[in-house]
Amino acid sequence: MAKRKNAEDRKEDIRKAAVDLISKIGFHDCTTDKIAEKAGISVGTIYNYFSNKQDILSYIFKVEKDKTADFFEKLLEKDLRADQKIKIFLENHFNKISTNQKKAKLLHDESNRPAKGVPQEIYEYVQLIRKYLKLLLKEGQNEGIINKNINTEMTSAIIMGAVNSIVLMGHLEHEKANLIFDNAPDEILAILSEGIFLKN
Amino acid sequence: MAKRKNAEDRKEDIRKAAVDLISKIGFHDCTTDKIAEKAGISVGTIYNYFSNKQDILSYIFKVEKDKTADFFEKLLEKDLRADQKIKIFLENHFNKISTNQKKAKLLHDESNRPAKGVPQEIYEYVQLIRKYLKLLLKEGQNEGIINKNINTEMTSAIIMGAVNSIVLMGHLEHEKANLIFDNAPDEILAILSEGIFLKN
Repeated sequence: MAKRKNAEDRKEDIRKAAVDLISKIGFHDCTTDKIAEKAGISVGTIYNYFSNKQDILSYIFKVEKDKTADFFEKLLEKDLRADQKIKIFLENHFNKISTNQKKAKLLHDESNRPAKGVPQEIYEYVQLIRKYLKLLLKEGQNEGIINKNINTEMTSAIIMGAVNSIVLMGHLEHEKANLIFDNAPDEILAILSEGIFLKN
Repeated sequence: MAKRKNAEDRKEDIRKAAVDLISKIGFHDCTTDKIAEKAGISVGTIYNYFSNKQDILSYIFKVEKDKTADFFEKLLEKDLRADQKIKIFLENHFNKISTNQKKAKLLHDESNRPAKGVPQEIYEYVQLIRKYLKLLLKEGQNEGIINKNINTEMTSAIIMGAVNSIVLMGHLEHEKANLIFDNAPDEILAILSEGIFLKN
Protein backbone atom coordinates (compact mmCIF):
# COMPACT_ATOMS: atom_id res chain seq x y z
CA MET A 1 0.00 0.00 0.00
CA ALA A 2 2.77 2.42 0.96
CA LYS A 3 4.78 1.44 -2.10
CA ARG A 4 1.80 2.02 -4.39
CA LYS A 5 1.26 5.53 -3.07
CA ASN A 6 4.93 6.20 -3.63
CA ALA A 7 4.64 5.19 -7.29
CA GLU A 8 1.67 7.48 -7.79
CA ASP A 9 3.52 10.34 -6.13
CA ARG A 10 6.49 9.80 -8.40
CA LYS A 11 4.31 9.74 -11.51
CA GLU A 12 2.78 13.00 -10.30
CA ASP A 13 6.26 14.48 -9.76
CA ILE A 14 7.20 13.59 -13.34
CA ARG A 15 3.96 15.07 -14.67
CA LYS A 16 4.48 18.34 -12.79
CA ALA A 17 8.12 18.63 -13.88
CA ALA A 18 7.10 18.02 -17.50
CA VAL A 19 4.32 20.65 -17.36
CA ASP A 20 6.81 23.15 -15.98
CA LEU A 21 9.45 22.38 -18.56
CA ILE A 22 7.25 22.10 -21.66
CA SER A 23 5.53 25.39 -20.90
CA LYS A 24 8.94 27.04 -20.53
CA ILE A 25 10.96 25.60 -23.43
CA GLY A 26 8.25 24.00 -25.59
CA PHE A 27 7.54 20.33 -26.25
CA HIS A 28 10.01 20.14 -29.13
CA ASP A 29 13.06 21.09 -27.03
CA CYS A 30 11.93 19.11 -24.01
CA THR A 31 13.69 15.75 -23.43
CA THR A 32 13.17 12.97 -20.90
CA ASP A 33 16.68 13.79 -19.60
CA LYS A 34 15.65 17.36 -18.82
CA ILE A 35 12.38 16.21 -17.23
CA ALA A 36 14.28 13.73 -15.05
CA GLU A 37 16.71 16.45 -13.94
CA LYS A 38 13.84 18.80 -13.10
CA ALA A 39 12.01 16.09 -11.15
CA GLY A 40 15.21 15.13 -9.32
CA ILE A 41 15.15 11.50 -10.46
CA SER A 42 17.04 9.34 -12.96
CA VAL A 43 15.89 8.97 -16.57
CA GLY A 44 15.60 5.25 -15.93
CA THR A 45 12.92 5.95 -13.34
CA ILE A 46 10.90 7.91 -15.92
CA TYR A 47 10.91 4.85 -18.19
CA ASN A 48 9.30 2.84 -15.39
CA TYR A 49 6.23 5.01 -15.88
CA PHE A 50 6.35 6.34 -19.44
CA SER A 51 7.71 5.02 -22.73
CA ASN A 52 8.74 8.44 -24.10
CA LYS A 53 8.09 12.17 -23.85
CA GLN A 54 5.05 11.90 -26.13
CA ASP A 55 3.63 9.47 -23.61
CA ILE A 56 4.14 12.04 -20.84
CA LEU A 57 2.35 14.71 -22.87
CA SER A 58 -0.56 12.35 -23.44
CA TYR A 59 -0.69 11.66 -19.71
CA ILE A 60 -0.76 15.41 -18.97
CA PHE A 61 -3.83 15.70 -21.18
CA LYS A 62 -5.37 12.56 -19.72
CA VAL A 63 -5.20 14.06 -16.23
CA GLU A 64 -6.77 17.31 -17.50
CA LYS A 65 -9.43 15.34 -19.34
CA ASP A 66 -10.32 13.37 -16.21
CA LYS A 67 -10.50 16.56 -14.12
CA THR A 68 -12.66 18.23 -16.77
CA ALA A 69 -15.05 15.28 -17.03
CA ASP A 70 -15.31 15.23 -13.24
CA PHE A 71 -16.03 18.96 -13.13
CA PHE A 72 -18.77 18.77 -15.77
CA GLU A 73 -20.41 15.63 -14.33
CA LYS A 74 -20.79 17.41 -10.99
CA LEU A 75 -21.98 20.59 -12.72
CA LEU A 76 -24.64 18.73 -14.70
CA GLU A 77 -26.09 17.26 -11.50
CA LYS A 78 -26.48 20.67 -9.86
CA ASP A 79 -29.96 22.10 -9.42
CA LEU A 80 -29.27 25.19 -11.54
CA ARG A 81 -30.46 26.57 -14.85
CA ALA A 82 -28.31 25.90 -17.93
CA ASP A 83 -27.27 29.56 -18.28
CA GLN A 84 -26.04 29.53 -14.67
CA LYS A 85 -24.08 26.35 -15.37
CA ILE A 86 -22.46 27.91 -18.45
CA LYS A 87 -21.53 30.90 -16.29
CA ILE A 88 -19.93 28.59 -13.72
CA PHE A 89 -18.01 26.75 -16.46
CA LEU A 90 -16.62 30.01 -17.91
CA GLU A 91 -15.68 31.40 -14.50
CA ASN A 92 -14.02 28.16 -13.47
CA HIS A 93 -12.17 27.85 -16.80
CA PHE A 94 -10.67 31.35 -16.74
CA ASN A 95 -9.96 31.09 -13.04
CA LYS A 96 -7.93 27.91 -13.60
CA ILE A 97 -6.08 29.61 -16.46
CA SER A 98 -5.39 32.70 -14.41
CA THR A 99 -4.00 30.78 -11.46
CA ASN A 100 -1.91 28.38 -13.53
CA GLN A 101 -0.82 30.25 -16.63
CA LYS A 102 2.11 27.93 -17.36
CA LYS A 103 -0.09 24.87 -17.67
CA ALA A 104 -2.71 26.87 -19.58
CA LYS A 105 -0.14 27.94 -22.16
CA LEU A 106 1.01 24.35 -22.61
CA LEU A 107 -2.55 23.09 -23.05
CA HIS A 108 -3.34 25.87 -25.49
CA ASP A 109 -0.19 25.55 -27.59
CA GLU A 110 -0.27 21.77 -27.82
CA SER A 111 -4.01 21.56 -28.55
CA ASN A 112 -3.84 24.12 -31.37
CA ARG A 113 -1.23 22.43 -33.53
CA PRO A 114 -2.26 21.23 -36.97
CA ALA A 115 -4.04 17.87 -36.99
CA LYS A 116 -1.01 15.95 -38.24
CA GLY A 117 0.65 14.23 -35.32
CA VAL A 118 -1.69 15.52 -32.61
CA PRO A 119 -1.97 12.71 -30.08
CA GLN A 120 -5.39 11.19 -29.55
CA GLU A 121 -5.53 12.38 -25.91
CA ILE A 122 -5.21 16.04 -26.92
CA TYR A 123 -7.89 15.76 -29.55
CA GLU A 124 -10.14 14.04 -27.03
CA TYR A 125 -9.54 16.75 -24.42
CA VAL A 126 -10.71 19.49 -26.78
CA GLN A 127 -13.69 17.45 -27.97
CA LEU A 128 -14.67 16.63 -24.38
CA ILE A 129 -15.23 20.26 -23.39
CA ARG A 130 -17.27 20.83 -26.54
CA LYS A 131 -19.34 17.72 -25.85
CA TYR A 132 -20.28 18.94 -22.36
CA LEU A 133 -20.99 22.46 -23.60
CA LYS A 134 -23.31 20.99 -26.20
CA LEU A 135 -25.09 19.03 -23.44
CA LEU A 136 -25.54 22.24 -21.44
CA LEU A 137 -26.89 24.06 -24.51
CA LYS A 138 -29.41 21.26 -25.15
CA GLU A 139 -30.40 21.24 -21.48
CA GLY A 140 -31.02 24.98 -21.80
CA GLN A 141 -33.13 24.49 -24.90
CA ASN A 142 -35.26 21.88 -23.13
CA GLU A 143 -35.68 24.21 -20.15
CA GLY A 144 -36.81 27.02 -22.47
CA ILE A 145 -33.84 29.12 -21.33
CA ILE A 146 -31.87 28.91 -24.60
CA ASN A 147 -33.17 29.74 -28.09
CA LYS A 148 -34.31 26.50 -29.77
CA ASN A 149 -33.18 27.77 -33.21
CA ILE A 150 -29.47 27.73 -32.43
CA ASN A 151 -27.35 24.89 -33.75
CA THR A 152 -25.86 23.44 -30.55
CA GLU A 153 -22.98 21.78 -32.42
CA MET A 154 -21.89 25.07 -34.01
CA THR A 155 -22.61 27.15 -30.93
CA SER A 156 -20.42 24.94 -28.75
CA ALA A 157 -17.62 25.46 -31.32
CA ILE A 158 -18.28 29.22 -31.33
CA ILE A 159 -18.09 29.44 -27.52
CA MET A 160 -14.90 27.36 -27.31
CA GLY A 161 -13.36 29.38 -30.15
CA ALA A 162 -14.16 32.59 -28.28
CA VAL A 163 -12.69 31.16 -25.07
CA ASN A 164 -9.48 29.93 -26.73
CA SER A 165 -9.02 33.18 -28.62
CA ILE A 166 -9.11 35.16 -25.37
CA VAL A 167 -6.69 32.70 -23.78
CA LEU A 168 -4.28 33.32 -26.68
CA MET A 169 -4.76 37.07 -26.30
CA GLY A 170 -3.78 36.76 -22.64
CA HIS A 171 -0.66 34.73 -23.50
CA LEU A 172 0.41 37.27 -26.14
CA GLU A 173 -0.23 40.33 -23.94
CA HIS A 174 1.38 38.89 -20.87
CA GLU A 175 1.36 42.04 -18.72
CA LYS A 176 -2.42 42.40 -19.14
CA ALA A 177 -3.13 38.66 -18.82
CA ASN A 178 -4.76 38.73 -15.37
CA LEU A 179 -7.07 41.59 -16.29
CA ILE A 180 -8.03 39.83 -19.53
CA PHE A 181 -8.75 36.49 -17.81
CA ASP A 182 -10.71 38.23 -15.02
CA ASN A 183 -12.99 40.07 -17.46
CA ALA A 184 -13.38 37.29 -20.01
CA PRO A 185 -16.32 35.37 -18.45
CA ASP A 186 -18.50 38.49 -18.13
CA GLU A 187 -17.60 39.69 -21.61
CA ILE A 188 -18.53 36.32 -23.16
CA LEU A 189 -21.66 35.99 -21.02
CA ALA A 190 -22.82 39.49 -22.01
CA ILE A 191 -22.63 38.50 -25.68
CA LEU A 192 -24.43 35.19 -25.02
CA SER A 193 -27.15 37.09 -23.10
CA GLU A 194 -27.78 40.11 -25.27
CA GLY A 195 -25.59 39.99 -28.35
CA ILE A 196 -23.72 43.18 -29.20
CA PHE A 197 -26.15 44.87 -31.59
CA LEU A 198 -28.74 47.17 -30.02
CA LYS A 199 -32.39 46.75 -30.92
CA ASN A 200 -33.99 49.65 -32.77
CA MET B 1 7.19 46.07 -69.88
CA ALA B 2 6.42 42.65 -71.32
CA LYS B 3 9.30 41.14 -69.35
CA ARG B 4 8.08 42.70 -66.11
CA LYS B 5 4.60 41.19 -66.50
CA ASN B 6 6.26 37.86 -67.18
CA ALA B 7 8.18 38.05 -63.89
CA GLU B 8 5.00 38.83 -61.97
CA ASP B 9 3.22 35.93 -63.65
CA ARG B 10 6.03 33.60 -62.71
CA LYS B 11 6.00 34.76 -59.08
CA GLU B 12 2.26 34.13 -59.08
CA ASP B 13 2.81 30.62 -60.54
CA ILE B 14 5.25 29.84 -57.73
CA ARG B 15 2.84 31.17 -55.11
CA LYS B 16 -0.04 29.09 -56.45
CA ALA B 17 2.07 25.92 -56.68
CA ALA B 18 3.25 26.44 -53.10
CA VAL B 19 -0.31 26.98 -51.80
CA ASP B 20 -1.38 23.77 -53.52
CA LEU B 21 1.54 21.76 -52.22
CA ILE B 22 1.66 23.08 -48.64
CA SER B 23 -2.06 22.49 -48.16
CA LYS B 24 -1.63 18.93 -49.41
CA ILE B 25 1.58 17.75 -47.71
CA GLY B 26 2.11 20.46 -45.05
CA PHE B 27 4.79 23.13 -44.82
CA HIS B 28 7.26 20.82 -43.08
CA ASP B 29 7.43 18.28 -45.92
CA CYS B 30 7.30 20.91 -48.65
CA THR B 31 10.60 21.74 -50.39
CA THR B 32 11.58 24.32 -53.02
CA ASP B 33 12.38 21.35 -55.32
CA LYS B 34 8.81 20.07 -55.04
CA ILE B 35 7.37 23.56 -55.54
CA ALA B 36 9.53 24.03 -58.67
CA GLU B 37 8.36 20.69 -60.06
CA LYS B 38 4.73 21.58 -59.40
CA ALA B 39 5.14 25.01 -61.03
CA GLY B 40 6.94 23.46 -64.02
CA ILE B 41 10.09 25.56 -63.57
CA SER B 42 13.64 25.00 -62.33
CA VAL B 43 14.57 25.46 -58.66
CA GLY B 44 17.06 28.08 -59.82
CA THR B 45 14.17 30.17 -61.11
CA ILE B 46 12.49 30.04 -57.68
CA TYR B 47 15.63 31.53 -56.14
CA ASN B 48 15.33 34.51 -58.48
CA TYR B 49 12.19 35.44 -56.56
CA PHE B 50 12.50 33.89 -53.09
CA SER B 51 15.41 33.08 -50.80
CA ASN B 52 13.81 29.93 -49.31
CA LYS B 53 10.49 28.18 -48.66
CA GLN B 54 9.88 30.26 -45.52
CA ASP B 55 10.11 33.30 -47.76
CA ILE B 56 7.44 31.81 -50.04
CA LEU B 57 5.14 31.17 -47.06
CA SER B 58 5.61 34.77 -45.93
CA TYR B 59 4.75 35.94 -49.45
CA ILE B 60 1.57 33.82 -49.44
CA PHE B 61 0.48 35.60 -46.27
CA LYS B 62 1.56 38.98 -47.63
CA VAL B 63 -0.73 38.52 -50.64
CA GLU B 64 -3.62 37.50 -48.34
CA LYS B 65 -2.87 40.44 -46.07
CA ASP B 66 -2.94 42.89 -48.98
CA LYS B 67 -6.21 41.42 -50.27
CA THR B 68 -7.73 41.58 -46.79
CA ALA B 69 -6.65 45.20 -46.22
CA ASP B 70 -8.06 46.10 -49.63
CA PHE B 71 -11.36 44.38 -48.83
CA PHE B 72 -11.75 46.14 -45.47
CA GLU B 73 -10.73 49.58 -46.78
CA LYS B 74 -13.46 49.35 -49.41
CA LEU B 75 -15.94 48.01 -46.85
CA LEU B 76 -15.24 50.87 -44.41
CA GLU B 77 -16.00 53.44 -47.11
CA LYS B 78 -19.41 51.93 -47.89
CA ASP B 79 -22.52 53.80 -46.82
CA LEU B 80 -23.78 51.01 -44.59
CA ARG B 81 -24.31 50.49 -40.87
CA ALA B 82 -21.57 48.71 -38.91
CA ASP B 83 -23.73 45.62 -38.32
CA GLN B 84 -24.31 45.32 -42.07
CA LYS B 85 -20.57 45.63 -42.67
CA ILE B 86 -19.83 42.90 -40.13
CA LYS B 87 -22.40 40.72 -41.91
CA ILE B 88 -20.65 41.35 -45.25
CA PHE B 89 -17.26 40.53 -43.72
CA LEU B 90 -18.52 37.22 -42.29
CA GLU B 91 -20.28 36.22 -45.52
CA ASN B 92 -17.24 37.12 -47.61
CA HIS B 93 -14.86 35.30 -45.25
CA PHE B 94 -16.78 32.02 -45.22
CA ASN B 95 -17.51 32.26 -48.92
CA LYS B 96 -13.78 32.56 -49.67
CA ILE B 97 -13.10 29.59 -47.38
CA SER B 98 -15.83 27.52 -48.97
CA THR B 99 -14.64 28.14 -52.53
CA ASN B 100 -10.95 27.66 -51.76
CA GLN B 101 -10.71 25.13 -48.97
CA LYS B 102 -7.11 24.18 -49.73
CA LYS B 103 -5.81 27.70 -49.20
CA ALA B 104 -8.09 28.14 -46.19
CA LYS B 105 -6.64 25.06 -44.54
CA LEU B 106 -3.10 26.30 -45.15
CA LEU B 107 -3.87 29.75 -43.71
CA HIS B 108 -5.59 28.21 -40.71
CA ASP B 109 -2.91 25.61 -39.93
CA GLU B 110 0.02 27.96 -40.34
CA SER B 111 -1.56 30.82 -38.40
CA ASN B 112 -2.45 28.61 -35.42
CA ARG B 113 0.99 27.26 -34.67
CA PRO B 114 2.57 28.17 -31.36
CA ALA B 115 4.20 31.62 -31.28
CA LYS B 116 7.75 30.27 -31.53
CA GLY B 117 8.97 30.61 -35.09
CA VAL B 118 5.76 32.04 -36.55
CA PRO B 119 6.88 34.44 -39.28
CA GLN B 120 6.03 38.10 -38.84
CA GLU B 121 3.76 38.12 -41.92
CA ILE B 122 1.49 35.44 -40.45
CA TYR B 123 1.20 37.21 -37.14
CA GLU B 124 0.43 40.45 -38.98
CA TYR B 125 -2.25 38.76 -41.10
CA VAL B 126 -4.15 37.56 -38.04
CA GLN B 127 -3.76 40.89 -36.27
CA LEU B 128 -4.91 42.78 -39.36
CA ILE B 129 -8.35 41.15 -39.44
CA ARG B 130 -8.77 41.82 -35.72
CA LYS B 131 -7.72 45.46 -36.18
CA TYR B 132 -10.38 46.04 -38.85
CA LEU B 133 -13.04 44.21 -36.84
CA LYS B 134 -12.25 46.45 -33.90
CA LEU B 135 -12.65 49.49 -36.16
CA LEU B 136 -16.06 48.22 -37.29
CA LEU B 137 -17.11 47.61 -33.68
CA LYS B 138 -16.09 51.15 -32.69
CA GLU B 139 -17.88 52.57 -35.73
CA GLY B 140 -20.99 50.71 -34.58
CA GLN B 141 -20.64 52.09 -31.05
CA ASN B 142 -20.39 55.63 -32.42
CA GLU B 143 -23.46 55.05 -34.59
CA GLY B 144 -25.41 53.80 -31.56
CA ILE B 145 -25.82 50.42 -33.27
CA ILE B 146 -23.49 48.46 -30.99
CA ASN B 147 -23.59 48.34 -27.21
CA LYS B 148 -21.13 50.91 -25.79
CA ASN B 149 -20.32 48.66 -22.83
CA ILE B 150 -18.57 45.96 -24.83
CA ASN B 151 -14.77 45.86 -24.85
CA THR B 152 -13.98 46.14 -28.59
CA GLU B 153 -10.51 44.60 -28.15
CA MET B 154 -11.91 41.50 -26.50
CA THR B 155 -14.97 41.30 -28.71
CA SER B 156 -12.86 41.34 -31.87
CA ALA B 157 -10.88 38.42 -30.39
CA ILE B 158 -14.12 36.63 -29.50
CA ILE B 159 -15.52 37.02 -33.03
CA MET B 160 -12.28 35.86 -34.69
CA GLY B 161 -12.04 32.95 -32.27
CA ALA B 162 -15.59 31.92 -33.16
CA VAL B 163 -14.83 32.23 -36.87
CA ASN B 164 -11.58 30.22 -36.67
CA SER B 165 -13.18 27.55 -34.53
CA ILE B 166 -15.89 26.96 -37.15
CA VAL B 167 -13.25 26.89 -39.89
CA LEU B 168 -11.44 24.15 -37.95
CA MET B 169 -14.73 22.28 -37.45
CA GLY B 170 -15.21 22.37 -41.24
CA HIS B 171 -11.69 21.06 -41.88
CA LEU B 172 -12.18 18.21 -39.39
CA GLU B 173 -15.64 17.22 -40.66
CA HIS B 174 -14.74 17.40 -44.31
CA GLU B 175 -17.92 15.85 -45.72
CA LYS B 176 -20.07 18.48 -43.96
CA ALA B 177 -17.68 21.38 -44.66
CA ASN B 178 -19.80 23.19 -47.26
CA LEU B 179 -22.92 23.05 -45.10
CA ILE B 180 -20.96 24.30 -42.08
CA PHE B 181 -19.36 27.21 -43.99
CA ASP B 182 -22.71 28.14 -45.57
CA ASN B 183 -24.51 28.32 -42.22
CA ALA B 184 -21.69 29.89 -40.20
CA PRO B 185 -22.31 33.61 -40.96
CA ASP B 186 -26.00 33.44 -39.95
CA GLU B 187 -25.23 31.38 -36.85
CA ILE B 188 -22.59 33.90 -35.68
CA LEU B 189 -24.75 36.90 -36.62
CA ALA B 190 -27.71 35.47 -34.70
CA ILE B 191 -25.58 35.30 -31.55
CA LEU B 192 -24.22 38.81 -32.10
CA SER B 193 -27.79 40.08 -32.59
CA GLU B 194 -29.71 38.32 -29.84
CA GLY B 195 -27.37 36.18 -27.80
CA ILE B 196 -28.55 32.63 -27.11
CA PHE B 197 -30.31 33.07 -23.75
CA LEU B 198 -34.01 33.90 -23.91
CA LYS B 199 -35.34 36.81 -21.85
CA ASN B 200 -37.81 35.92 -19.12
